[in-house]
Parts: sequence; structure tokens; C-alpha cells
Amino acid sequence: MTAVAFLDYLSVFVFALTGALVASRAQLDLLGFLFIASLTAVGGGTVRDLVLNRETIFWIANPRYIGVASAAALLVFFFAHRLENRRRAIDWFDAGALAVAVPAGVGVALDLGHGPAVVVMMGMMTGAFGGLMRDVVCNEVPLVLRQGELYLSAAFAGAAAALLIRWGVGPTPLALLGCAAVTFLLRAGSMTYGWKLPVYKSRPPRNRV
Amino acid sequence: MTAVAFLDYLSVFVFALTGALVASRAQLDLLGFLFIASLTAVGGGTVRDLVLNRETIFWIANPRYIGVASAAALLVFFFAHRLENRRRAIDWFDAGALAVAVPAGVGVALDLGHGPAVVVMMGMMTGAFGGLMRDVVCNEVPLVLRQGELYLSAAFAGAAAALLIRWGVGPTPLALLGCAAVTFLLRAGSMTYGWKLPVYKSRPPRNRV
Amino acid sequence: MTAVAFLDYLSVFVFALTGALVASRAQLDLLGFLFIASLTAVGGGTVRDLVLNRETIFWIANPRYIGVASAAALLVFFFAHRLENRRRAIDWFDAGALAVAVPAGVGVALDLGHGPAVVVMMGMMTGAFGGLMRDVVCNEVPLVLRQGELYLSAAFAGAAAALLIRWGVGPTPLALLGCAAVTFLLRAGSMTYGWKLPVYKSRPPRNRV
Repeated sequence: MTAVAFLDYLSVFVFALTGALVASRAQLDLLGFLFIASLTAVGGGTVRDLVLNRETIFWIANPRYIGVASAAALLVFFFAHRLENRRRAIDWFDAGALAVAVPAGVGVALDLGHGPAVVVMMGMMTGAFGGLMRDVVCNEVPLVLRQGELYLSAAFAGAAAALLIRWGVGPTPLALLGCAAVTFLLRAGSMTYGWKLPVYKSRPPRNRV
Repeated sequence: MTAVAFLDYLSVFVFALTGALVASRAQLDLLGFLFIASLTAVGGGTVRDLVLNRETIFWIANPRYIGVASAAALLVFFFAHRLENRRRAIDWFDAGALAVAVPAGVGVALDLGHGPAVVVMMGMMTGAFGGLMRDVVCNEVPLVLRQGELYLSAAFAGAAAALLIRWGVGPTPLALLGCAAVTFLLRAGSMTYGWKLPVYKSRPPRNRV
Repeated sequence: MTAVAFLDYLSVFVFALTGALVASRAQLDLLGFLFIASLTAVGGGTVRDLVLNRETIFWIANPRYIGVASAAALLVFFFAHRLENRRRAIDWFDAGALAVAVPAGVGVALDLGHGPAVVVMMGMMTGAFGGLMRDVVCNEVPLVLRQGELYLSAAFAGAAAALLIRWGVGPTPLALLGCAAVTFLLRAGSMTYGWKLPVYKSRPPRNRV
């Protein structure tokens, strides 16, 4: 199994868990769980493959991904009531999925020989689009855009780390590992310790006289 | 005309009716009707064709589909005020469109030789995405995800029925007919008699001591 | 630089300004600005290129578009607080971007030899989808569908004007210029003087006895 295939499997499973948990908040039935779980799980990678014009979308080439997403949906459907706090579980699973989806996007773009701007965009898009579709369709406030947390910034830093490692002596698998680590640490640190970037302020102090 | 082309025409027309009816609830002008009607009408098939990497999107290959969607939009713009209950009309037209869009997705996936998981996903996606885009863009609660009704489940059962008929001795047109019938009967039964699957309950009785 | 490439650059820059302004209303951080600005800037053209099955998406073929969108995002992040009225700025920049994105869509469809229905649809979709994604993701009421204003109608009229000029003796660049002018004048007139088309009325006077 290639590094990208492994990352795709892992992010499909974990994003599917978050999709099914959001479906549980929306009180959907089993097929609703499967649909939202699949949408979340394969959304980012599908957009990546379409935009990069890969010959076949990853989950069409290998339908086992759908099986993986369905297994995650079933797991949540039958066991989610044991979770103390579903909103918190969604946040943490989503952080894990982000940390594998970003290198999955970065890895494909690197394989195809794209330059840094496309590599970074693909990392961010592959990481962000599944969760964005999940939240827009289920009418939740998009986690991707939650104020005062690192999310897209964590994805950006992870993709940048991958590029830096590659520009040094690093082989691609190491670069993808570094990307996953940086993304997860920043996202987890943000959720745990409140790390954040300054947000836009419409009236900064220097204008208040 | 092939079976899939016929199903595409019919689902384009009927989904366009639902799109235009939603546009009428949003008080849009004529071009707003045409846009939402077209988006709803070709949305599911466009996603299907993109994901399956068909050479040309169906309505680009044959722009008469746009004419069909426009005719439906005009019809609604000038005659919808005669309807007693537009919300109810949307639900029933949507049920009819779903029952033709699901086999349209199933038929394309079967033609391309895909396995059961992809066939079922394509049936559900082709059936669900047009209505999902319509409702997300017009800020309606997505019909696809309405609680306590069979929708995605009806699409799933229809796609599964098509596979079963094909695995027996059935030719593809019969499988698609069976798919349409099963999808429509389940959806219509759900709207009329309240048929539904159990939804996820966060605290099932066995936990209440 | 071809006429379409020039239009793409300009619409990317101006749509990115609107995306970043919407990001400022949502109080996002710098990476949030970059993401929403890029989504808005390349959304319409990406859908156009996917649906028309162009060999490479325009901003993958030439990543400088991402640089242009990022520059616009930075500009807004650091200087938007100087604007008196961001909502009004969004409307006017969006009008300008629409007026270049519609001919960018029309031009590509004409180049590929498509018929009038596809040309008009591509104009409307390229013009409308970026702003639609921006507003749906950031949970704003979609500008594209705002009641009692010309928006899709302006795009439609612009695309129609391009076709008329081409059917006369006009060369393509003149047709695209005419398209931009008609789109902008109608949109600007609508914002300034309240020009609009009649909207759908569920109970027209003749039914009130």
C-alpha cells in the first residue's frame, strides 16, 4: 500500500466517524448516517481528484473506501450513545482526520509534480472540504471556520512543513509524516490551550484615537 | 433513445419543477427560477458524470436538457399560483424525480461495469444531490435529510432492487424499472402512511435503568 | 495574454476581495481570509472547467491565480477597517467581478464551439458560483438570489449580448467586452436605481376577484 493510499483509508474512516456523529445530532436514520458519513469521508479527496484531473476518483477506483466509511457509520449508529459528549468527540475525531487528509492531499499534488502553491492549496482543500460539506448540508456552523481556533492555519502549516522537509533532504514519506504531525499538534494545541491567530478586527485600537 | 437518456429527460423535467417551486417560495424573478430549476435538474447527473469521469457531462453533450428545465421553470413561473399547496407539490414532484434519477444513476454505473458499492452510491448521489443543492442554496431544510421519512433509504432500496434483478435473469431495462418502482413506492408510502426507519436515539431505553 | 486569461485574472482578484470582505464579517483569521478569498475567486471558473471537461483547471495550469487571490486577501485583512461600509463594498466589488466572470465563462464556451444554450449557462454559472459558494459557506444570504435585484438576469443579458454581437459581424473580444458592459450596467443600475424584473407572486390580482 502506498503512503497516500494508507492516509486516504485512515482519513476516510475517521472523517466518516465525524460525519456519522453529526448525523446523530440531526437525528437521521441509518441510511442518513451512511450518506453523511460517506460525503464527509470522501468529499475532500473527491474534490482533490477532480481538480487535479486524476484518471479515476480514488473511491471509484477502489470501492473498499465505501465499505470503510459504512463500517464507521454503523459503529456510530449503534455505539454513539455511549459517548459522554458528542460535540467534543466530533472535534477530536475531526482533528485526527484533518491531520491525515492534509498529507493525503499534499502527497497526491507532490506525486503529480505540482509547485508549492498548488501543493498547499490541495492540502488545505483535501483537509477542509469533507468537513465543510458535512456541516453545510447538516446546517451546523462549519468547524473549518470556527472563530478563534487554528484549523485552516494548522492545515497550512502542515502543508508548509511538508514542503520544507522535501526541500531539505527528506523523502516524501517523511515529509507527509511531518505534515500530519504539525497539523495535528497545532489543531490539538488550539483546542486544548486556546492557541490562535489574531482575527480580523474591524476597528483596531490605533483608530480609536 | 436509450433507457438512461429517457430517465435523464424525465428527471430533469420533474426536478426542474421542484426547483422552480422552491424558487417561487424564495420570491425570485424569472432568471432565478431558471437558475434554481436548472441547478436542481442537472445537479445530481452532473456530479454523477464528474465522479464517474464520463467523457462529456450529459447536458453539455445534449443542451436540449437545458431547454427542458427552462420549460419547467416557465410553467411554474406562470401557473404555480393555481396550486393549493406548493410545499406538498414540491414533495410529490420530488418523489417522482427521485424515482427516475436513482435508476438514471444506477444505469450509468452499470453500463460502465462498476461493482455493487459504486452502483448503489451513484444511485443515491444522482437521486439526492440535485435536491440537496436546491435546498442548501435556497436555505430550505434539506428534504433529503428530513427526519422520520424514507428518502435516502428509498433510494438505497431501489438501487439494491436493480442489483437483485440483474443478478437474477433480468435485463438492464427491467432492473431500472424495478428500481424506479421500489424507490417511488417506498417514498410515496412514507409520505402517505408515515413509513419510516428507526432514527438514532442518543439515550435508548436500556440506559434509562 | 488571451482575452479569457485577462478576464480570469481580473475576476479572480475582484472576487477574492469580496470573499475576504465576507471573511472579515465572519471574524476569521488570516488563513480563513485566504481560504474564503480563494474559494470565491476560483469557484466559478473551476466549476466551468470541470463541467466543460477542460484538460486542466485554469488555476492548476497557472498557480499565479492563487497568488493574485492571496494578495487580495492580504489587502483586505490589513486595510478593510478603512472602509466605511463593508456590505456596500462587497456589493460593488461583486458587481465588478460578475461583469468579468460572465464573459470569462462565455469566452471559454465559445472557444470550445458550444451552442447558445451552453454558452449562456456557462456565463451564468461562472459568474454566479464563486459568490454562491462564498455566501453558502459563510452563511450569508446569497447575493446571487437577493430579491428584487438584477443579478442572474444581468448575467443572462450579458451572455445574450455576447451571442448577438457574434451573430452580427463582431469578433470574439468585442463580444466579450459587450458582455461585460451589459452585465455591469444592468447590475449597477439595479443597485443604484432599483431596476428589477417582476418577481413571482403567489396570488396575482386577477385571482382576488
